[in-house]
Amino acid sequence: MAPRGQREFFAVRTLGEALSEFRPRRRTGAERIPLGDALGRVPDEPVVGSQALPGFARATVDGFAVRAADTYGASEGLPAYLDLAGEVRMGSRPEVEVRPGTAAAIATGAPLPPGADAVLMVEHSQAALPELVEVLRPVAPGDGMVRADEDAAPGVELATPGRPLRAHDLGMLAAAGVTEVIVRERPRVTIVSTGDELVPAETRELEIGQVRDSTAVALAALVREAGGEPHHAGIVPDDREALAVTLRGAVPESDVLVISAGSSVGARDQTAAAIESLGEPGIWCHGLAFRPGKPTLLADCGGVPVIGLPGNPRSALVVFRVVGMPIVRLVGGCTEPPPEPAVHARLDRDLPSAAGRADVVQARVRDGVATPLFGSSSLLSILTAADGYLVVPESATGLPAGTEVEVILYR
Amino acid sequence: MAPRGQREFFAVRTLGEALSEFRPRRRTGAERIPLGDALGRVPDEPVVGSQALPGFARATVDGFAVRAADTYGASEGLPAYLDLAGEVRMGSRPEVEVRPGTAAAIATGAPLPPGADAVLMVEHSQAALPELVEVLRPVAPGDGMVRADEDAAPGVELATPGRPLRAHDLGMLAAAGVTEVIVRERPRVTIVSTGDELVPAETRELEIGQVRDSTAVALAALVREAGGEPHHAGIVPDDREALAVTLRGAVPESDVLVISAGSSVGARDQTAAAIESLGEPGIWCHGLAFRPGKPTLLADCGGVPVIGLPGNPRSALVVFRVVGMPIVRLVGGCTEPPPEPAVHARLDRDLPSAAGRADVVQARVRDGVATPLFGSSSLLSILTAADGYLVVPESATGLPAGTEVEVILYR
Repeated sequence: MAPRGQREFFAVRTLGEALSEFRPRRRTGAERIPLGDALGRVPDEPVVGSQALPGFARATVDGFAVRAADTYGASEGLPAYLDLAGEVRMGSRPEVEVRPGTAAAIATGAPLPPGADAVLMVEHSQAALPELVEVLRPVAPGDGMVRADEDAAPGVELATPGRPLRAHDLGMLAAAGVTEVIVRERPRVTIVSTGDELVPAETRELEIGQVRDSTAVALAALVREAGGEPHHAGIVPDDREALAVTLRGAVPESDVLVISAGSSVGARDQTAAAIESLGEPGIWCHGLAFRPGKPTLLADCGGVPVIGLPGNPRSALVVFRVVGMPIVRLVGGCTEPPPEPAVHARLDRDLPSAAGRADVVQARVRDGVATPLFGSSSLLSILTAADGYLVVPESATGLPAGTEVEVILYR
Repeated sequence: MAPRGQREFFAVRTLGEALSEFRPRRRTGAERIPLGDALGRVPDEPVVGSQALPGFARATVDGFAVRAADTYGASEGLPAYLDLAGEVRMGSRPEVEVRPGTAAAIATGAPLPPGADAVLMVEHSQAALPELVEVLRPVAPGDGMVRADEDAAPGVELATPGRPLRAHDLGMLAAAGVTEVIVRERPRVTIVSTGDELVPAETRELEIGQVRDSTAVALAALVREAGGEPHHAGIVPDDREALAVTLRGAVPESDVLVISAGSSVGARDQTAAAIESLGEPGIWCHGLAFRPGKPTLLADCGGVPVIGLPGNPRSALVVFRVVGMPIVRLVGGCTEPPPEPAVHARLDRDLPSAAGRADVVQARVRDGVATPLFGSSSLLSILTAADGYLVVPESATGLPAGTEVEVILYR
């Protein structure tokens, strides 16, 4: 077992620094995909429409296309009368024209006929004779309709680069006739598990001392949530050379490299040494000033972000959620990540914390009350019992019971 | 054009009634899938572990496995001395035993050797001689370790039926050796677009009066967000018999049937008539007392939920989000939907509303201020410009500027 050295206290950064200053240059390329597959994908450049939408003036109510001036002054007591010139058919060019003193029957969504500048709602009319419309209220030009370019003018930005496409963004693009979009490729995230104690999750019976690799499958799920494509490179023993060989093989085909490190100090030393051999500029920090992320390694190996996670499964998942997922998004060009669910709640007990260190604390939330969950960071059950987590900031020396905190909720 | 009849005011339900009382019996079956594919999927039954986890007492710090009683009274001034009996290897059954007066070197994650009941942190020890450990602080039994069943006792529920699996749930299942899970099948949701004005989204040039089917692709995306599998049955003209034929063909292979109806009153009449022909008990409501959901049809056709959406694209997407997605989740066995992101903000203007009718209002949110977006419900641009929506409840007759509202955020 290696003695604890200086390294622990060397190049420790805060969570905020890691999120704002760790910026390896790797970015994924662009690919063209069908619109139907584009939910959550990140446009590479602005998508600009070339046509006005809806493309023609359109009724938004059922009623009569009219010249507004013909209705001025009309009331229930003194209706105006217009000759019914015909009916506009849905979905095709109107065959009828609205001349002064006439009206045409029109349904919601149908194109305004030439001459008309408003639509009178059927509720504000009365059928006097089959060929005559009784107007009970005046309409102003533009009433009961949308203009030809009211949904989108030509040249308007229909989708924003950097923001994942939402369901209604896809609708807008479809309306504009966009059937394929150019998006950033999903970052390929290689996950390497290390640890002499680890055996594949498929192992049915464990020997004393063995644990199944639970972190890899959970990390893969978080990679997917962040828009990446996970690849598990398997389990490597706590051996510097074996790890270096695996990592060197993984770097060229990875946009992000994640090492689920062994849990001992010795194993972390091996990981750091193996990462140092991967390329310049190398290790950016040997630790993060937050609990449970202290033994986190961040490195930039020839532009590829390398994340050395703590060995404990719970710590690894917490660190990957708060530090790793933003890196995956960054590499995938996502500059406006989707909002996270959160809830405000009152702490039901004191939360001790050291100044200068942020604490990520798991919590249950019931009826506006947050109960922090404590226990060894090796325990996954603390995470599965939690509804979310809260952050005690670096500046605070703990939070007293009753403090209102924001709990970021898991989904 | 059909005159407005009684129907509009017949069987109108509130949003709350729709969400709590509309309960067609259709539920999807169960399927067995690999754990790695199970993110967001809904377990069919409790997953119960058969083994204790981690399965053996385990060190949670680097240091020395000891008998706690041997350390009582130790201090920096008056250390206790223990003979170093050996070292525990990571990942295998310990070959060393800790007898009274002895200690064994151990790394985080390694199994406790027989005889030991605590782990002394290396920081609280000092290397006196190679074979001697100097103990500078006492430890209590259980310190620096977790028990064999501390993460999970045999028989504990590792995943809950009805709640979509989260990343760390997959980790917990992997730790327990669960490599496949039985989950509910994704509900198959058939989307039928109707409207004489609709043309496929692929259409490059539109004639006056034609609009591209923008709703189907957006609905498909919302179906996926709700855990369903969308199928687009294509565009059907506003013809009762043609629609009835398409719907009758779709029902047997659908868990949920969604009709993106034509926008006119006449088209809605056709839709209602076609739905009535599908099976008992039939139409549950002809309208919902909320804006923009008024012309929403809900029906139960032989157990299959049928949702007739309003014709305007924006209304259709809003209704599907607030009413349709919960139905898809229900059919897919999801009783604990994931939390939605939301933010509290102050209204920057008055929001008028009628009592007895809920309003779903699109809004932009900047720096804690919510700006409602108004415009024809035919405009998709109102949705794409919005960050989320707020609900003015049925009981309110509008909300004054300055009211603090909750905006559900799109993601």
